[in-house]
Amino acid sequence: MCELLGMSANVPTDIRFSFAALARRGGETGPHADGWGISFYEGGRGCRSFHDPSPSARSELAKLLRNYPIKSRVVVAHVRKANRGRVSLENTHPFSRELWGRRWTFAHNGQLKGVKKLPLAGFRPIGSTDSEHAFCWMLGRLHARWSDMPKASALDRAVADLSAELHGLGVFNMLLTDGRTLYAHCGKRLCYLTRCAPFGTATLIDEDWRVDFSQETTESDVVSVVATQALTRDETWTEIPRGQMLSLRDGAIRLLVPGENGARLVAPPCGG
Amino acid sequence: MCELLGMSANVPTDIRFSFAALARRGGETGPHADGWGISFYEGGRGCRSFHDPSPSARSELAKLLRNYPIKSRVVVAHVRKANRGRVSLENTHPFSRELWGRRWTFAHNGQLKGVKKLPLAGFRPIGSTDSEHAFCWMLGRLHARWSDMPKASALDRAVADLSAELHGLGVFNMLLTDGRTLYAHCGKRLCYLTRCAPFGTATLIDEDWRVDFSQETTESDVVSVVATQALTRDETWTEIPRGQMLSLRDGAIRLLVPGENGARLVAPPCGG
Repeated sequence: MCELLGMSANVPTDIRFSFAALARRGGETGPHADGWGISFYEGGRGCRSFHDPSPSARSELAKLLRNYPIKSRVVVAHVRKANRGRVSLENTHPFSRELWGRRWTFAHNGQLKGVKKLPLAGFRPIGSTDSEHAFCWMLGRLHARWSDMPKASALDRAVADLSAELHGLGVFNMLLTDGRTLYAHCGKRLCYLTRCAPFGTATLIDEDWRVDFSQETTESDVVSVVATQALTRDETWTEIPRGQMLSLRDGAIRLLVPGENGARLVAPPCGG
Repeated sequence: MCELLGMSANVPTDIRFSFAALARRGGETGPHADGWGISFYEGGRGCRSFHDPSPSARSELAKLLRNYPIKSRVVVAHVRKANRGRVSLENTHPFSRELWGRRWTFAHNGQLKGVKKLPLAGFRPIGSTDSEHAFCWMLGRLHARWSDMPKASALDRAVADLSAELHGLGVFNMLLTDGRTLYAHCGKRLCYLTRCAPFGTATLIDEDWRVDFSQETTESDVVSVVATQALTRDETWTEIPRGQMLSLRDGAIRLLVPGENGARLVAPPCGG
């Protein structure tokens, strides 16, 4: 099983604290030693990704990122434990494609039985993973339905419906984003939290690093983090129910439940 | 004017020597301080890119890459002096898209009058540069003509023809690659050289760095480098004639001349 990390915030936010924990799970505190990658959205449309097919716990590039403050409102990261598709750069998540003039980024963990039988339209995998095939299928379906970006609520529902189809094929823990909305589907295991005022402190589980967020933030900051497993030991992480999906915009969270129209707003733990 | 750097080799090759010169031109020995980027192909289909909207001469990321030996058979790099499109991550070259299940990478310098009137099909710009529009137009045209990767000679000719169209709109110094072939079109200024046995030494123009390639290579290595301006002071760089294009595979060079069918093989300076 791979590990996922996603972030959605209403201000450009430094992800290094959370990424540090994830990176150690790539071959040190976890067995996910088959490569890692992270994508940062900056200024809305700009996106840069870093990929390394070597273990993140021993990666020079990961070390650089720990010391390099990229501030971003949307982040997707992944450390890989390969099951399908050999260890190589082209099989290293996150994957990305352009649709509707925006860069879409996708990371997945789990196995999807028969996913490669799903027909593709327009987008093709470069590597050999089931995950990239699923991503290309999703984008092809979205593109077939809308030639231009639809409104956010319609897109939320469409991504939830496509995710439900893939959920039927196996385990579909997934992060997907267009740089504005972060989608997080729980196939088996995925949890989240929102940090907002009044801010407290947090300590990583995987290493001795403690942050006092009240020193790093302003009153109006809202930062939501999604991860396979809790990253901190002194905050409350909430499991996403299996088969359900979060849609995160500017740190605000909506829960999409199969068979329900609309989305339930998840109240953040803000206010005194 | 921006600066371009491309490499095509028959073995995975360390580009750091050449990249060092380019990086210094980004705000130190040259005025190209509006961001930079570099894409490395590894193992054929894998590709990773590094982008930074800050000057390469003062970039932490560029410093890391100077010390981080990524071995690659195809590289495209760019340092930017913005003329059209503001300085931002989404306007930072190289640009990339997937076509026919391969990752295509594009970098350009020059201005193209009226390029945004060229109709797009399938691929859309994420940023606001003329360059990305030209790239999307080229890929859309290729995709409209072939639903699958055509044979190399047909693709060479098609890319040369599309480049000639863009050359008619202004200055089209361009590097384009699918990870197998590197295309280098000269609109105004672009030069190249091939390093092969017997290998000699070379010294950078932009800093005090000298390499003895005979210590770094084997007899059968062939490495071709394309750059806006000569990077070394003790090697012979050849100008590509304006309006003509090179197609480089495994370090071997073919010259495509408008109006001519086929391509002229450029004899490398190999042999004793």
